Amino acid sequence: MNGLHASDTLAVDAVRAMSHVQDDRLVQMQRALAGFGGRDDGGVSREALTAAELAARQWLCSQLTGVQYQWYIDDAANLIVRRQGSEPKLAPVMTGSHVDTQPVGGWLDGAYGVIAGIEVLHALDDAGIRTRRSIDVVVWTNEEGSRFSPGAMGSCAFSYPSRLPAFLAAQDASGQCFEVARDAAFDATPHARRIPLGYPIHAYIEAHIEQGPVMENGGQSLGIVTAIQGVRWYEITVHGNSAHAGTTPLAARQDALFIAATMVSELGTAAAARRDDALRWTVGRFEVSPGSINTIADRVTFSVDLRHPQESVLVAMEALLHRMLAQHRGACRYEVRTLMQRAPTLFDANVVSVLESAVQKTTVPYCHLTSGAFHDAMYIADHCPAAMLFVPSKKGISHNVAEDTDVTDLVVGARALTAALVTLSIT
Amino acid sequence: MNGLHASDTLAVDAVRAMSHVQDDRLVQMQRALAGFGGRDDGGVSREALTAAELAARQWLCSQLTGVQYQWYIDDAANLIVRRQGSEPKLAPVMTGSHVDTQPVGGWLDGAYGVIAGIEVLHALDDAGIRTRRSIDVVVWTNEEGSRFSPGAMGSCAFSYPSRLPAFLAAQDASGQCFEVARDAAFDATPHARRIPLGYPIHAYIEAHIEQGPVMENGGQSLGIVTAIQGVRWYEITVHGNSAHAGTTPLAARQDALFIAATMVSELGTAAAARRDDALRWTVGRFEVSPGSINTIADRVTFSVDLRHPQESVLVAMEALLHRMLAQHRGACRYEVRTLMQRAPTLFDANVVSVLESAVQKTTVPYCHLTSGAFHDAMYIADHCPAAMLFVPSKKGISHNVAEDTDVTDLVVGARALTAALVTLSIT
Repeated sequence: MNGLHASDTLAVDAVRAMSHVQDDRLVQMQRALAGFGGRDDGGVSREALTAAELAARQWLCSQLTGVQYQWYIDDAANLIVRRQGSEPKLAPVMTGSHVDTQPVGGWLDGAYGVIAGIEVLHALDDAGIRTRRSIDVVVWTNEEGSRFSPGAMGSCAFSYPSRLPAFLAAQDASGQCFEVARDAAFDATPHARRIPLGYPIHAYIEAHIEQGPVMENGGQSLGIVTAIQGVRWYEITVHGNSAHAGTTPLAARQDALFIAATMVSELGTAAAARRDDALRWTVGRFEVSPGSINTIADRVTFSVDLRHPQESVLVAMEALLHRMLAQHRGACRYEVRTLMQRAPTLFDANVVSVLESAVQKTTVPYCHLTSGAFHDAMYIADHCPAAMLFVPSKKGISHNVAEDTDVTDLVVGARALTAALVTLSIT
Repeated sequence: MNGLHASDTLAVDAVRAMSHVQDDRLVQMQRALAGFGGRDDGGVSREALTAAELAARQWLCSQLTGVQYQWYIDDAANLIVRRQGSEPKLAPVMTGSHVDTQPVGGWLDGAYGVIAGIEVLHALDDAGIRTRRSIDVVVWTNEEGSRFSPGAMGSCAFSYPSRLPAFLAAQDASGQCFEVARDAAFDATPHARRIPLGYPIHAYIEAHIEQGPVMENGGQSLGIVTAIQGVRWYEITVHGNSAHAGTTPLAARQDALFIAATMVSELGTAAAARRDDALRWTVGRFEVSPGSINTIADRVTFSVDLRHPQESVLVAMEALLHRMLAQHRGACRYEVRTLMQRAPTLFDANVVSVLESAVQKTTVPYCHLTSGAFHDAMYIADHCPAAMLFVPSKKGISHNVAEDTDVTDLVVGARALTAALVTLSIT
């Protein structure tokens, strides 16, 4: 990354801007946003490009209306507000995240990253700071992927515009096309100017809740995310012979369910035995045919979700998977299919370094960590220098009405984000 | 059982009648019956009281029309043909089975027991034998239980008439009541006189395919069934904590799927380690919530189908189940619910003895065995002395288009049935 060498010291304006982050304003905005799609139980139902999400976008636009602001929207309906810098021809610094939720989500998730970004701009206004580069706050479209598949559509299309046509054809459960939903987003924010996908960005920092228990358990208020884990998804199908549960002696069976359960148990035990804190190994789906109480199963299909920050460990675990399954080759026929794989994303060392200087200035306990979940930053890191900043998730819960983070952590996150963005915008 | 002492020697008429069983007639009838609900792939779709099953009943009525025959139907639509004996006031000897199938079944199953019974009557006609007691051939209603639950409704209602009202209210998947379907059976066979449920029976023998591989593996053509296994059905629910597969360290998880799979594997291994050929242990259902590839499961519900001819073993296995599950009490919360239990059915020693004498007369290899599947004979054994006669199932397959038995075994089964019924009808 050219011209980015501010890692050991923050700009004077950066430190000054931090103090203008307002606790009340941040929390009020966060709560107001949670009202769009808000549920009686405290949860939020605001899937991508639904009426609730479009109303949330309109409300966001109403939060930044000064002459220094211009709203934009791109062909994937990514919504962007730009606070103009003193040298508007330079590539802007960007922050943001997404405001869509799972069918039922909590009040924070990606919405925190968007609100934190807006609070940064308010703080700069209050501090009377004009940055050299413009600062963009982005609302990525359809990160969750629960309404339209795949997830992170907006950030993916931003970094890889050639993928947009396929995304436009994606349909939700009711048969509505993403393209139609996207056009509704254009109509909802008519004042937003069109901007091309993949325009140049100087650096990107995304704030987000951790969605895991690591920081809470470690007593850290902030987390500097240096990487997103690599992931491989497998589907394993075990074939047996369907037969009557009452008439078939145990020795004469080829019981797909018993064999598959033994595989799941053995593989899970082997994964745990590696005692690698960074390893994630999950069997989340286990589907049985015919699934009748008194019929021996003739087929089981189960999934494996494997993640690790190091590609070499993913390769080793895949080899282990094949070796352990092969021990059952005498008992049954099985197949392994790779559904998806993505190498680890390593964030930019310079952006990480700027972020660490900013985090240190807050004086709260912090850590470096790897993100276990996907984020828009994963695709944006392919486009420009990027990093992420995490605040803790209470009990590690997310995608749930119980999702929560201490307000003091939300505020300190916005402070660190402010200092980092201002520093990056000067370079 | 009073007056039944013919176990060591068969009646002269019994031996003579055996020789009048005709291979071609038996097979022709069996194939003709398979035409009702017959499928292009060789399977049979003839669920209880459907148009196909009612047409099959009408066709059965057309097979026995002489003056010596009277057709009856009871309040559960059990259809009975009686070949009148010389002392019609004595309780009749009964044979038969059912002609309903699973949604897709094979050509034999219970239909074999009905056709074998009709062939016995044809053989007696050809031999010019008039038995002392009448011989009834019965078609029990809804044995499979796939259209209306529970199974073996007709034979259960016959032995326990007080259960009929609850059965009449049972609905199929389309919402039609059993009562309406039963009334259609009355309309389909208007010449059949009404007969009360639970009328006195002197003795009952049901011929059926084995539906398991034991006889084929042992090289036996006939099997004398001395008991039906006892059964216990359990539903085990394992509770975990739903969390993100990417963010939650292995050590911080309460993974219901991994724990449940380990339980299934351990329990199945322990059952197999008992090396008890008569033990049946099956997990056929395993349902995961939420069942998402990248979410740790918060709940798994799995079934256990436990069977054994000895009640004491069922008790011991249930205790083992509880002990083994308890080893996981530190890792998760779980519940065990008993869905069903039925003690073993022991068939009548005298009827078994008569049947063995008849089987020996055929000179084919035979065995004694326990039925692993339920049959109508299970309920009829509560009403009168009863036993069953099995012919082998190729590869143990049933409820499947591939269900098959050598024609020579079908014929020898009908011969043994003839000799046994004639002997019982004399006493």
